[in-house]
Amino acid sequence: MQGEIITIGDELISGKTLDLNAWYAAGKLTSLGLKVCRITVVGDDYEMVSQSLKRAMEGAKFIIVTGGLGSTEDDKTCQIVAKALDRPLCRDNRMYELIKGHAEARGLKVSPSLEKMAWLPDGAKMISPEKGPCGFHLKEGDVHLYFLPGVPREMRYLMDKFVIPDLLAKYKDLPVVQSRVLKVFGLTEPEIAEIFKQLEGKTGDVTFGFYPKFPEHHIILSLAHNDEAHVKEELDRVQGLVEKLLGPHLFAKGDETLEQAVGRLLKREAMTLALAESCTGGLVGHRVTNVSGSSEYFQGSVVCYSNKAKEDLLGVSPQTLERHGAVSGQTAREMAIGAKRALRADIAVAITGIAGPSGGSKEKPVGTVYLGLAGAEEVISKRYRFLGSRREIKAQAATMALDWVRRYVTKTPLLSGL
Amino acid sequence: MQGEIITIGDELISGKTLDLNAWYAAGKLTSLGLKVCRITVVGDDYEMVSQSLKRAMEGAKFIIVTGGLGSTEDDKTCQIVAKALDRPLCRDNRMYELIKGHAEARGLKVSPSLEKMAWLPDGAKMISPEKGPCGFHLKEGDVHLYFLPGVPREMRYLMDKFVIPDLLAKYKDLPVVQSRVLKVFGLTEPEIAEIFKQLEGKTGDVTFGFYPKFPEHHIILSLAHNDEAHVKEELDRVQGLVEKLLGPHLFAKGDETLEQAVGRLLKREAMTLALAESCTGGLVGHRVTNVSGSSEYFQGSVVCYSNKAKEDLLGVSPQTLERHGAVSGQTAREMAIGAKRALRADIAVAITGIAGPSGGSKEKPVGTVYLGLAGAEEVISKRYRFLGSRREIKAQAATMALDWVRRYVTKTPLLSGL
Repeated sequence: MQGEIITIGDELISGKTLDLNAWYAAGKLTSLGLKVCRITVVGDDYEMVSQSLKRAMEGAKFIIVTGGLGSTEDDKTCQIVAKALDRPLCRDNRMYELIKGHAEARGLKVSPSLEKMAWLPDGAKMISPEKGPCGFHLKEGDVHLYFLPGVPREMRYLMDKFVIPDLLAKYKDLPVVQSRVLKVFGLTEPEIAEIFKQLEGKTGDVTFGFYPKFPEHHIILSLAHNDEAHVKEELDRVQGLVEKLLGPHLFAKGDETLEQAVGRLLKREAMTLALAESCTGGLVGHRVTNVSGSSEYFQGSVVCYSNKAKEDLLGVSPQTLERHGAVSGQTAREMAIGAKRALRADIAVAITGIAGPSGGSKEKPVGTVYLGLAGAEEVISKRYRFLGSRREIKAQAATMALDWVRRYVTKTPLLSGL
Repeated sequence: MQGEIITIGDELISGKTLDLNAWYAAGKLTSLGLKVCRITVVGDDYEMVSQSLKRAMEGAKFIIVTGGLGSTEDDKTCQIVAKALDRPLCRDNRMYELIKGHAEARGLKVSPSLEKMAWLPDGAKMISPEKGPCGFHLKEGDVHLYFLPGVPREMRYLMDKFVIPDLLAKYKDLPVVQSRVLKVFGLTEPEIAEIFKQLEGKTGDVTFGFYPKFPEHHIILSLAHNDEAHVKEELDRVQGLVEKLLGPHLFAKGDETLEQAVGRLLKREAMTLALAESCTGGLVGHRVTNVSGSSEYFQGSVVCYSNKAKEDLLGVSPQTLERHGAVSGQTAREMAIGAKRALRADIAVAITGIAGPSGGSKEKPVGTVYLGLAGAEEVISKRYRFLGSRREIKAQAATMALDWVRRYVTKTPLLSGL
């Protein structure tokens, strides 16, 4: 059952705005077993829209069109569709009432440009599941056309609330498609490929997708089959095999992020966390506090960019800084000890390194990062070397720091350093 | 002079990967006065690629095709093009030597799948400006076709190094197109619209684009004309008018970010900065340290999520926390004073607020944020109310904090609070 997507907008065709609508619609449809065979992006232009629409109708069973439904001059999708399909524009009274209601709620009258939005091609039916954002649907021959607004929030709302359920009801014999997401840190792409070679012949019809989400890797297991129970059972079985092979590198599943997993584990163990950040500049604390409820386990972070701050706030000894340098295992250890004490936490992780692009040396090139951890009794440090831009080095160091917390709390060996 | 873009890849059509190539190519071409009239995205599928290519050739003067040039089974752009244009595949010896060189450098032999990449449609010319990434060019009638790899880094490299210069050389009568980017914080979209109404009749042929980059707004002034001197002069004139109207809300121009502007100003005044972050959790420090060389002026940040940390590390008095609460102007002031002293900086900015989604009250709803600043002599605090998700509230508070530094250093009044 294949369809097409057409997105309309001068801002898309000129490269001023990324086309998130086509991407969202394609992802949703594909994940449900509805194949998209072409995405066409055109400007607010009669000839191109009309031509693209007619061509899509030659092969598609459904077409999703976004954009050009607003009230301004350049919103002319309705007029173009009416002409292309040879249907007159008629005022849709339900649409008119909806627009009138919205306008009146804001103390406005229905201006001619607002009223224009209620004139739909003959035979079109308004889509507005809850009297919020609206679009319209029409059928031409056996092709279903869905016209949605270009505002991503509204477009996604109508996709989820109307288009997807409507399509699924129409195509009842679609297979059940389910996916599982496994998130991994600490393995390279070739290492993941090697691991999956061991599964050859054991994974039935389950398909795998590998997606680098720097610095993580996400692995998606998918299966389409008519029998839902079979899909679940097979995915459970194969996921079990994969999890065994990934071992401690698997840090989260589904929608959970690394910082959410860290938070869940700290709460489970009733432990509190402190940070001492140098080269990450606050990024680890930022990520930890992106999780709602993180104040339950997060005490704070001392971002000490200057050596003086490392001495004053964390009690790193001037001798250590003098002898080993600010970027050293000894400094990382003392930073962690200091943060644990100063912020009264159960564990503390410290990060000190050279994010670049300048500041590197032969012994400690750009990307050299030391992590330190002060736990209940032990103090650990390790040296790593990350590659990439300043931002990429910060990102890898921050993910490694969070992964240290996850591994420490679950008594898993840390990723080995240099 | 209009063209089309065709991007090929199952990962694009299934919504697994965002189509950054089409976006990049469209943006580049448009900014140079080369109009893109359609973008088509298809899978690695003979019928769809072939059909899209033929249709594009009906109207376009140039076509950029990306994807399907690699060595794996699903890379079949060359075969499809050869068949669609009725040209046999011929081995390109320059391409073969290049592939061989790359393989040998990695100690590999030229496998059949690698050699496949050297078989191009008859008449095609290899594109490889510096013997790195490569694609090919061919001419069919008066249409120029450029075939580029799908890997964004390689595709961008070839666009910039070959395709753009090649097209500009072919279409010499293109107008000169120049743009200016002005970045604004603290004005709403309707406020910006009001401001631009005052320019009516004064802006000649300069066009304006308004782009919300949450929580900033970017305004792009563009002009296309055959006379380069005229373009510069007119843009200078109109930019002057716009800058006057935007006043202190204009925080940066061109590629400069807010944190870069802040760094530039701190360096100019030889001032150092410290932070005390509560609800932003380290985001401000992260942004400040994204700028290379920030260690020159950034001392550090105390991320104090717990009340105890505010007392211990910043010296906020228990009475203040008791009487006014952690989210209060008084606490923000004491946090700023404490950070300035503890981190030995010239100025310190403090942020304390409720990022949500829980933790709000009637008096202090979610999104209530207090900022504090301790400068050479004065201590200031203000209350703001931001709307949105947890991440959006953090982002707005962080941008406001950076904007405070910019305004303080340039002796500009701060944005008014509640």
